[in-house]
Amino acid sequence: MKDEKHMDPIEKRARELLKERGVELKDIADLVYYLQNKYHENLKIEECLANIERVLSKREVQNAIITGIELDILAEKKLISEPLLTTLLNDEGLYGVDEIIAFSIINVYGSIGFTNYGYIDKQKPGILEKINEHHEGVCNTFLDDIVGAIAAAASSRLAHRAKNVE
Amino acid sequence: MKDEKHMDPIEKRARELLKERGVELKDIADLVYYLQNKYHENLKIEECLANIERVLSKREVQNAIITGIELDILAEKKLISEPLLTTLLNDEGLYGVDEIIAFSIINVYGSIGFTNYGYIDKQKPGILEKINEHHEGVCNTFLDDIVGAIAAAASSRLAHRAKNVE
Amino acid sequence: MKDEKHMDPIEKRARELLKERGVELKDIADLVYYLQNKYHENLKIEECLANIERVLSKREVQNAIITGIELDILAEKKLISEPLLTTLLNDEGLYGVDEIIAFSIINVYGSIGFTNYGYIDKQKPGILEKINEHHEGVCNTFLDDIVGAIAAAASSRLAHRAKNVE
Amino acid sequence: MKDEKHMDPIEKRARELLKERGVELKDIADLVYYLQNKYHENLKIEECLANIERVLSKREVQNAIITGIELDILAEKKLISEPLLTTLLNDEGLYGVDEIIAFSIINVYGSIGFTNYGYIDKQKPGILEKINEHHEGVCNTFLDDIVGAIAAAASSRLAHRAKNVE
Repeated sequence: MKDEKHMDPIEKRARELLKERGVELKDIADLVYYLQNKYHENLKIEECLANIERVLSKREVQNAIITGIELDILAEKKLISEPLLTTLLNDEGLYGVDEIIAFSIINVYGSIGFTNYGYIDKQKPGILEKINEHHEGVCNTFLDDIVGAIAAAASSRLAHRAKNVE
Repeated sequence: MKDEKHMDPIEKRARELLKERGVELKDIADLVYYLQNKYHENLKIEECLANIERVLSKREVQNAIITGIELDILAEKKLISEPLLTTLLNDEGLYGVDEIIAFSIINVYGSIGFTNYGYIDKQKPGILEKINEHHEGVCNTFLDDIVGAIAAAASSRLAHRAKNVE
Repeated sequence: MKDEKHMDPIEKRARELLKERGVELKDIADLVYYLQNKYHENLKIEECLANIERVLSKREVQNAIITGIELDILAEKKLISEPLLTTLLNDEGLYGVDEIIAFSIINVYGSIGFTNYGYIDKQKPGILEKINEHHEGVCNTFLDDIVGAIAAAASSRLAHRAKNVE
Repeated sequence: MKDEKHMDPIEKRARELLKERGVELKDIADLVYYLQNKYHENLKIEECLANIERVLSKREVQNAIITGIELDILAEKKLISEPLLTTLLNDEGLYGVDEIIAFSIINVYGSIGFTNYGYIDKQKPGILEKINEHHEGVCNTFLDDIVGAIAAAASSRLAHRAKNVE
């Protein structure tokens, strides 16, 4: 991991928020492994992690993380006005802004990440299942999509590197 | 305008928020007129307004409005944590989530709205100039892009209708 | 189905191309049923079909269809220059323009369609499995994503209507 | 510029096609300068060029270029079927697939590139004006948007670097 001292405040905050909300980079690496294992022989979890590190170094990604998770936290604190508050607390199916913010993460490594995102969003493996457990007073409407999007973006980056292109 | 009694809470809230933040539908209609006047002879402001009404009837658009403006208001109340708070209050150029949310509005009427959005975002005619005046303690980071996006989407709809296609 | 006489040339061509490439609207309706059956009690295939009809009436969707399938056909005729020809004939995983064109279809009914698209793109139920069978000289690189995108867009429309919003 | 010997066939082809269609990297650098000059003191054209080089090294960007320009060339050769042929030759305002392909270029460096793209697409400075001159038998429907998108993406990259973030 990057040396925290040299990390700028936005990147530092994005990484802290993931951790505070119960998501370790290792959990996201497991999602990347789940998505890419069948395409890359001898894929190592360290390689998945290294790609996640690069995804998290992008400003676009950091801004999506700190905005989305902020909305989750503000909803839990009931500081959001109605009817948005109920929409967020219920993770309303027609809402869509959570997906929109997730796409800004995926887009950074191109369109091939979208199918991976859609797939794990339906399958909910590993940490995604845990994030989606319903607990009274907990709102993970954005976190869910952000974590899936980071995994999808890291998968795209890994696929590009494996073919030796940027 | 739609009969308020039969309007659902999300649509009602989206329309109220625009008004509360100083944006009348007439102001957005002026932007549509500014963008489309040269392409449509005898374009009437009523026609611009009618297209805005239809854009505002879309759930995707309503959700973008109530989420973006909520973030502006929460920033003014200093209920957002740092460093996102400073990013929003300064309308930081590299932020990008405001544009992301604006695109979800434009997308509903297709890609041809993007150039109109980019154009008025740089030119800042009419209400957009007013929204962008700097006043201490006022945050219009999202409102700015949302208003431009509604105008761009209504312009796309108008252009499609003029050619008799959906 | 719409009366062909009153259909404009672009819509007519888009519908013809799907048929010529072996895709009936009924096949796409089966995909919508596959995606939405668990969320809507007593969902009828006619309802799926009606939503597909509306998706196909959008100009943005028609343009995506006639452009993508044209590229498939030109690749089969070897009228495309290298290295794009090989990329298309092999449905190269890093290509991405096929997904890009698919998104312009999904976007019309909002971001909630993306996860459905990603899911069936990985699962390949029904017609999608058939389209993806490898046959010498056949190129369905774009068709595959277009059909999945129409199904995902129709699913979004159906979900919106079920909640009585546009 | 990159050593051609070590360039892969897709990158090589993308760069050749721009040149063949009359667009030098220097022309795109002038667009970046036009967009960014007011924000960066002492901006050098070499810096604009360096950012364009990096944009062109992205596989997503290369694929968008070789696909879009291929469609322009096939339209000129009348190898595209109707009504798409007429749509492309006339650069029909409601078409939209050209913008869609342009966005896949801009997206790689995040949403802040969209307003720059929309702005120069309306203003048509420098090479964009030349590309848009109407000459019988010439089709630059995609080239136009691709060149604007490369300039917008390079501007985003430059803006990110200037603030010392990725």
